Amino acid sequence: MQDEFDFIEQIKPKKIYQSSLIEGIGDDAALIHQKPEMEQIICMDTMVEGIHFTTATMSPYQIGYKALAVNISDIAAMGGIPTFYLVSIAIPKCWDEQELLSIYDGMAMLANKYKMDLIGGDTVSTADCLTITVTVIGEIEKDKHLLRSNAKPGDIVFVTGTVGDSAAGLDVLLHNEDKVFSETEKILVYKHQFPQPRVEIGRMLAALPRVSLNDISDGIASEANEIAKASQVVFSIDEDCLPLSKAIREYNNSRSIEWALYGGEDFELIGTMPKSDWENIYKQCDEKGFIITKIGTVSEGPQKVLLNKKDKSYILDKKGYNHFKVETK
Amino acid sequence: MQDEFDFIEQIKPKKIYQSSLIEGIGDDAALIHQKPEMEQIICMDTMVEGIHFTTATMSPYQIGYKALAVNISDIAAMGGIPTFYLVSIAIPKCWDEQELLSIYDGMAMLANKYKMDLIGGDTVSTADCLTITVTVIGEIEKDKHLLRSNAKPGDIVFVTGTVGDSAAGLDVLLHNEDKVFSETEKILVYKHQFPQPRVEIGRMLAALPRVSLNDISDGIASEANEIAKASQVVFSIDEDCLPLSKAIREYNNSRSIEWALYGGEDFELIGTMPKSDWENIYKQCDEKGFIITKIGTVSEGPQKVLLNKKDKSYILDKKGYNHFKVETK
Repeated sequence: MQDEFDFIEQIKPKKIYQSSLIEGIGDDAALIHQKPEMEQIICMDTMVEGIHFTTATMSPYQIGYKALAVNISDIAAMGGIPTFYLVSIAIPKCWDEQELLSIYDGMAMLANKYKMDLIGGDTVSTADCLTITVTVIGEIEKDKHLLRSNAKPGDIVFVTGTVGDSAAGLDVLLHNEDKVFSETEKILVYKHQFPQPRVEIGRMLAALPRVSLNDISDGIASEANEIAKASQVVFSIDEDCLPLSKAIREYNNSRSIEWALYGGEDFELIGTMPKSDWENIYKQCDEKGFIITKIGTVSEGPQKVLLNKKDKSYILDKKGYNHFKVETK
Repeated sequence: MQDEFDFIEQIKPKKIYQSSLIEGIGDDAALIHQKPEMEQIICMDTMVEGIHFTTATMSPYQIGYKALAVNISDIAAMGGIPTFYLVSIAIPKCWDEQELLSIYDGMAMLANKYKMDLIGGDTVSTADCLTITVTVIGEIEKDKHLLRSNAKPGDIVFVTGTVGDSAAGLDVLLHNEDKVFSETEKILVYKHQFPQPRVEIGRMLAALPRVSLNDISDGIASEANEIAKASQVVFSIDEDCLPLSKAIREYNNSRSIEWALYGGEDFELIGTMPKSDWENIYKQCDEKGFIITKIGTVSEGPQKVLLNKKDKSYILDKKGYNHFKVETK
């Protein structure tokens, strides 16, 4: 790669969106005005080549897109508006400059959509695996806390979009080396490579007085357990209510529930809200073309997640449901 | 390593310092109150095993310390107070949990000193090189911008502490495999392994009406050129004025100037201020036991850095001084 300073010049944004930015890339650190009417949201996630992606299943552009998308998804899960991002990238010698610029282009595409400014980061060498760490900063109106600990008995459990598609898309990619895909397969592959952070739905939910919320990075089983644990409640989820896409059913219906529960990387939102708010939110989502589905209820009791399947209930663990722990309904 | 969630429980701070923190580690993202009287400073730096450190020259504790120190140094170079940090770490299998906890302990030591809270990050696997990315957030009183572009003709050029010691310390480590060090060598090794971010001096400088400032991560030659470029001025540095420690002179005086100019990783501050402010700042530093040295002057002209050496001036490039570019004094 050429000189680091020349590279920085190339990735430096040509346009600034956020009026609160005082100084972006180019000094020791970025400087930002603080807004007393807002609270700040900050998160940081890393993607490693060979662990979170391979060049066989993701192009440099898609890798960049996804590295930013997973972080924006965390802002969405707090009900916030993403505003800034910083990118640190450790680059092995085998990656050429054009590929690196494509990674930044993939991020810039999403950043433009959400009017986010790239304000800093680092570019360093590494021996082996490309590693991208992204920090995203967002904001939300004061005193709106969409935390995992907000669930209460009597709430309904909801999920946005459809679940399992990303895992199914990865399965398509891993079993089709020639990359000739059917229309159904193309849909699933797209869901894997270009997950949509649910910022708009997060914003709608932020208007409610009380919502618990998580984004689905590790699958419904894991995320539901996190909320149940943080809130000390029982989740009861109906398997028949899980929103599965037409594409996943067509591709491999026998594995669709497994992918929905444990696949992860859907970056949809899962959470709970008081029953009385459900109809209004459902209508709002429907009007804007967003899918939101009621998949269960919250009740009192020692923290756990139950999966109701026909006339039985299973304890749904983070990493799999345990057939030795059947509960009588 | 054990379960990621158990590991997070172990590194989670037991105590919160910053009253502006609403929600730290444990949800999708951290939540922070914004202070209208302050501006926010944000930076992000990555250290890669085999590139920025090796386990032969740095212990896990020192690696952690340094990963946080280099970022705090960027906050110091903006005149700010560090407040929060996020850590993302990509871990190869050969590192055990105790070593990882030592990395976090090394960071916690510095964080406690500066009353900073760990508010997020990520822990992921990697195949080969341990990679640590740290994001640090800091704050500074409104409208105080200690930027590289602030230098003006007539300013004096200063540097804090002594320079070259970190590079000399690395030289000691690389040439003493048995790790039996003289007292002089111990001082230099300590400077390499435990660089001190100059937050206190940065804060004194922030009180001045106009200061240009950079931290010395890449050596005086590189940092002086960055300020000269950003401010479009000429730096004139006197080689005889460069503050060299007794230890570096004793260890290898023939290479001390080379290390001071190009060694880097001293994490001292270099900058400029109006002549009229010098005496006052010098006194303040002296009273608190900090070294600050006037090493040159700023003048008008197309951006460059001159190094005055006996009766000649050389153009000091970022990466070395060029003997073909001697200027008549």
